[in-house]
Amino acid sequence: MKKSNKINTTSSVVNLKNSLKKSLKAVDEEIIYRLDKSIPLINDIGQHLINASGKRIRPLLTLAMAAHLNDISRKPIILAAAVEFIHTATLLHDDVVDESNLRRGKKTANIIWGNEFSVLAGDFLFAQSFELMVETESLEALSSLATASCKITQGEFQQMQIANKPDTSIKDYFDVIGKKTAELFGASCESGIIVAGGNKNLQKAAYDYGYNLGLAFQVIDDLMDFSQDSNKMGKNLGDDFKLGKTTLPIILVWEKSNKKEKQFWDRTLKELNQNSSDLNTALEIFNKYNIFVECKKIAAEFIIKSIKSLEDFSNSKFKDYLIGLANESIDRSK
Amino acid sequence: MKKSNKINTTSSVVNLKNSLKKSLKAVDEEIIYRLDKSIPLINDIGQHLINASGKRIRPLLTLAMAAHLNDISRKPIILAAAVEFIHTATLLHDDVVDESNLRRGKKTANIIWGNEFSVLAGDFLFAQSFELMVETESLEALSSLATASCKITQGEFQQMQIANKPDTSIKDYFDVIGKKTAELFGASCESGIIVAGGNKNLQKAAYDYGYNLGLAFQVIDDLMDFSQDSNKMGKNLGDDFKLGKTTLPIILVWEKSNKKEKQFWDRTLKELNQNSSDLNTALEIFNKYNIFVECKKIAAEFIIKSIKSLEDFSNSKFKDYLIGLANESIDRSK
Repeated sequence: MKKSNKINTTSSVVNLKNSLKKSLKAVDEEIIYRLDKSIPLINDIGQHLINASGKRIRPLLTLAMAAHLNDISRKPIILAAAVEFIHTATLLHDDVVDESNLRRGKKTANIIWGNEFSVLAGDFLFAQSFELMVETESLEALSSLATASCKITQGEFQQMQIANKPDTSIKDYFDVIGKKTAELFGASCESGIIVAGGNKNLQKAAYDYGYNLGLAFQVIDDLMDFSQDSNKMGKNLGDDFKLGKTTLPIILVWEKSNKKEKQFWDRTLKELNQNSSDLNTALEIFNKYNIFVECKKIAAEFIIKSIKSLEDFSNSKFKDYLIGLANESIDRSK
Repeated sequence: MKKSNKINTTSSVVNLKNSLKKSLKAVDEEIIYRLDKSIPLINDIGQHLINASGKRIRPLLTLAMAAHLNDISRKPIILAAAVEFIHTATLLHDDVVDESNLRRGKKTANIIWGNEFSVLAGDFLFAQSFELMVETESLEALSSLATASCKITQGEFQQMQIANKPDTSIKDYFDVIGKKTAELFGASCESGIIVAGGNKNLQKAAYDYGYNLGLAFQVIDDLMDFSQDSNKMGKNLGDDFKLGKTTLPIILVWEKSNKKEKQFWDRTLKELNQNSSDLNTALEIFNKYNIFVECKKIAAEFIIKSIKSLEDFSNSKFKDYLIGLANESIDRSK
């Protein structure tokens, strides 16, 4: 059952990528061209990140939204490259802030080149993304992504403020991941519709689709930190736990924990006083309260909202793929 | 003589500030409003920087250029706030990269709040600057500042690459400070003309004025590091020397130094093996070769170029002030 499920789950993304093969290739070429124009070290860092890149989900969304409105011109391609640059810039700075050493199974740029280069390379990619956006000649699309960029930073600030606080409210948590992750998903979709000339209603629908999809993605991401599959995806099992990050499983388990268990979370997450058996103990407590199932349920609810947002989209194969992509994301590896 | 000279030198900037008092106040209000809308910690860091701020030279240039074309509307005000945000963002990241602890006599943000907050606060201000630029509805102005932002980052990369290399060529040095400092001066001026509806010729003239002024500013800045006045301006005497930064006085003195002196520069700047008497020895070698006079001459040449760029500007009091500002900058404290 698991296996056949897996085959189904990849098909919409694969179909979408096949339908947009030319555009995706053009996005890659644009990214490489921009990096080549920079100075050698920025190019090295850029290439490292591009190679370490995952599914290019955000630029794919931009292209798919524009393609739904039959726009497969250069504008969405340029915009998609800008979206990927913004995302990559935030990863670079995020790794500096988090002091990470592994992302998608590769050493992070800050470990290879040092924090100072990561800060500057992120700045370069971010500035370059705005140069790209200027070329789309759409102030509206640019505005959407500029707003998302502001929110990402605010979200990362707030994330630092809830770190090591397992008693954070779910509301605060969703505020953080809304800004940190979902806004860029929303803007990636919305701006694709904007450059393709879609009206305000379609823009809003695309934004809502992306925003809710982004929330689901982040919840699944949080979950994957505690999954045996995490290392398949280039992550270290329990990375978030070791840092005392406040993620959805932590917030849910804290609410249900008894006094003794709360003492355990206090020691491991608040005080960051951990020993080698603590991750196993954490996993046992998660299982006791079915936390992972609960998280998947919450992610599924966002996916349902996401798909519902596309109700007013006219029928197109791209609409079908976008719905499929959302459905499949529950089982995704990022 | 020195004193009366000093009185003359401040008058154009003072006159310019008085003429643009309302607009400058509106820029400050815009900056505070944008920071207030952010989250508390960003606001704290922002306020710290705004308070520690110097002359607001860049936004002043933007406003003055627009005012020369009789535009004292909201657009140049918004743009000037964006320019100041870009500049402040680069200072924040620069301090992280440099590991500075003092700027304009105040503790740097990275020392007070930590590097991670400085990185994020810089990102926020940078993203916010693009939101502001969107409000000017001028893709051309936005493009000018986006390009400058890219160049700043490239310049900072290159600056790191010439660090601890006193044998850097003057050409490479001017390439670095051109990108790191002069581009934003140029774009601050150019974008002021753009939003005020000036033609391509005026845009180019404004850019050239700002670019050359920026080069002169940086040369004077380099010089001030070795000046007894540096602490009056909130800097530590010899900061650049202690870090082994490759600045114009260093490059010029290296070229003239004899074998023994080159060994001294190798030890102090390449190997960063310094003792307490080295700064004095350095100053003695500078004086032996009249390096500071030579630097002032080079700065003056840029000022002359800068002023010459405004030749085709029609007569206006703002043109006069801009010429005065350039003339005065030789004796400025930044």
